[in-house]
Amino acid sequence: MESKRIGKQTIKLQNPPCISAFASVGGKMEADGPLAKCFDYLSEDSYFGAKSWESAESAMLKKCFDIAVGKAGISAGVLDYVLTGDLLNQCVGSEFAVKDSGVPLFGLYGACSTMAESLSLAAMIIDGGFADKVCAMTSSHFCSAERQFRLPLSYGGQRSPTAQWTATAAGALILSNEEKGPYVTHITTGKIVDAGVCDSANMGSAMAPAALETILTHLTETGRDPMYYDMIVTGDLGVVGHEILVELAFQNGYDLSPVCYDCGMLIYDREKQDVHAGGSGCGCSASVLAGHLLPKLINGEIKSILFAATGALMSPTTSQQGESILGICHAVSIEAEKC
Amino acid sequence: MESKRIGKQTIKLQNPPCISAFASVGGKMEADGPLAKCFDYLSEDSYFGAKSWESAESAMLKKCFDIAVGKAGISAGVLDYVLTGDLLNQCVGSEFAVKDSGVPLFGLYGACSTMAESLSLAAMIIDGGFADKVCAMTSSHFCSAERQFRLPLSYGGQRSPTAQWTATAAGALILSNEEKGPYVTHITTGKIVDAGVCDSANMGSAMAPAALETILTHLTETGRDPMYYDMIVTGDLGVVGHEILVELAFQNGYDLSPVCYDCGMLIYDREKQDVHAGGSGCGCSASVLAGHLLPKLINGEIKSILFAATGALMSPTTSQQGESILGICHAVSIEAEKC
Repeated sequence: MESKRIGKQTIKLQNPPCISAFASVGGKMEADGPLAKCFDYLSEDSYFGAKSWESAESAMLKKCFDIAVGKAGISAGVLDYVLTGDLLNQCVGSEFAVKDSGVPLFGLYGACSTMAESLSLAAMIIDGGFADKVCAMTSSHFCSAERQFRLPLSYGGQRSPTAQWTATAAGALILSNEEKGPYVTHITTGKIVDAGVCDSANMGSAMAPAALETILTHLTETGRDPMYYDMIVTGDLGVVGHEILVELAFQNGYDLSPVCYDCGMLIYDREKQDVHAGGSGCGCSASVLAGHLLPKLINGEIKSILFAATGALMSPTTSQQGESILGICHAVSIEAEKC
Repeated sequence: MESKRIGKQTIKLQNPPCISAFASVGGKMEADGPLAKCFDYLSEDSYFGAKSWESAESAMLKKCFDIAVGKAGISAGVLDYVLTGDLLNQCVGSEFAVKDSGVPLFGLYGACSTMAESLSLAAMIIDGGFADKVCAMTSSHFCSAERQFRLPLSYGGQRSPTAQWTATAAGALILSNEEKGPYVTHITTGKIVDAGVCDSANMGSAMAPAALETILTHLTETGRDPMYYDMIVTGDLGVVGHEILVELAFQNGYDLSPVCYDCGMLIYDREKQDVHAGGSGCGCSASVLAGHLLPKLINGEIKSILFAATGALMSPTTSQQGESILGICHAVSIEAEKC
């Protein structure tokens, strides 16, 4: 078989899979943000009808999964696989969300890069001829993340200016081998970049060098100019990490500024909402992709995006042990037409 | 393209990838067990030269990765992807193990089913034409797992008779598209089975129904009899879960007993070692596969195995919240010859 590999980290899909349906769900903070009208469902109840923050996250992701499946006009039982993961210890948010679906599960952990990771593997599974329909999805919840990674909410700790706000949001995509856009055309898989940043209240700085590495590698290996894309969209660098990325790219001879956006900056209004450096979490990039970016591709407003979700690989334990926060970024090229 | 799907959960690989090299590493308890001579490296130092149990796990997995790469006669830079995950919160064991490798990473979370999950996806990536060489691996460490999931070691808590001993072990496999056995021929991906078991000291009971579901589905969808396989090997059911599996299979009309083994029962001598129901952990099935099972396929002692790694999807938080322990099992058919 002809290799689909066009570079050390990049593959070109032979029969680009279609993103045939997608859904996004958010909470109260997201309902107050500039993308409110992009969500398929917004809950005023941060518990999503559940009894704990962890089960709230599962309920939210299940809601998102159900909406995506409904929009695809299928039943969950038609799906060949679901690929999902989240930030909670042992990925319980995802597991309890899909436990009754009856769909074969590949569990992932890519921190906040999970939407791009799940999308990458789902696209490869379909292009490889192993499946007809696959769901790729992820979520995050401010309340479950805050108490697990930082402090109990009731403590009311002051947040650092560089800190980000974990989105209470989920995104779910249904991929298929249908002949209609948008298509997943290229995948550039990230390797770990250790920038030596140890401040877990400054994830943007820890992830920006990984975003740089993956985006520049993608452009080099595809032979594309940044301006090929209408939008190059990182996951959750926030304003601090975004500025570092643009500056580092400039130092490397690339002007990303005309096309570079960050889901963490798009999802909230930093002037009006107290989110400090911006949004973060798996659900941030997932919901912005499903709610804001893919509709732009569908309605013809834009033709191509490079979705580059960023992840900070660490645990409270490794941070307490003085380890640095490892960055990773997976990039997926999504285009209205096959190329 | 012709679909490789032969059933709802099973695919047949078109060009079965080869497992071209593999390595296993273990600790002190494993060195005292019946498979001691199967390990490529055994450490008397449970810290593996590191300063914390968590970094010890990373050091152990890195050692295993380095040995596997060395046995494959390649440098790590030749690998197209590494697929790995572990039991630690946010999978930090794996992330810090591969952080300096420079290999594109797909992080996974499948609890103790991770070896079969990583093997499944690695085989699909190669058969799909996306890569030439992929590493699939995982690890677990008794000391990091014990304090994270149960109690601090220094507490000296009494263990339940149904409890299992998390193996301090790692296994790493290098898959390639070379024309030599053993080959990955079929993959049956598990869905979550919720048996309603809430006792986290009785994981075998929680996982056995998932193992049953996946193994019986595999046999049905491939049209194979249990006796087709020289060995059907579950990951870490332990003696409690193993007996439940064999009994449930019998009730469903399948006599698995002549060919059914469990890595958790193979790795330790329950008469001489104080491991209660047997071994567990991602590293248990991974090291038994790499150290004990694959050599049997290479030396012609056996011709085919069904490797069915089992996972318990839960976190201490979900258990404290009264949720049940979800079971999953992924099965991979590994054969000396292509079929």
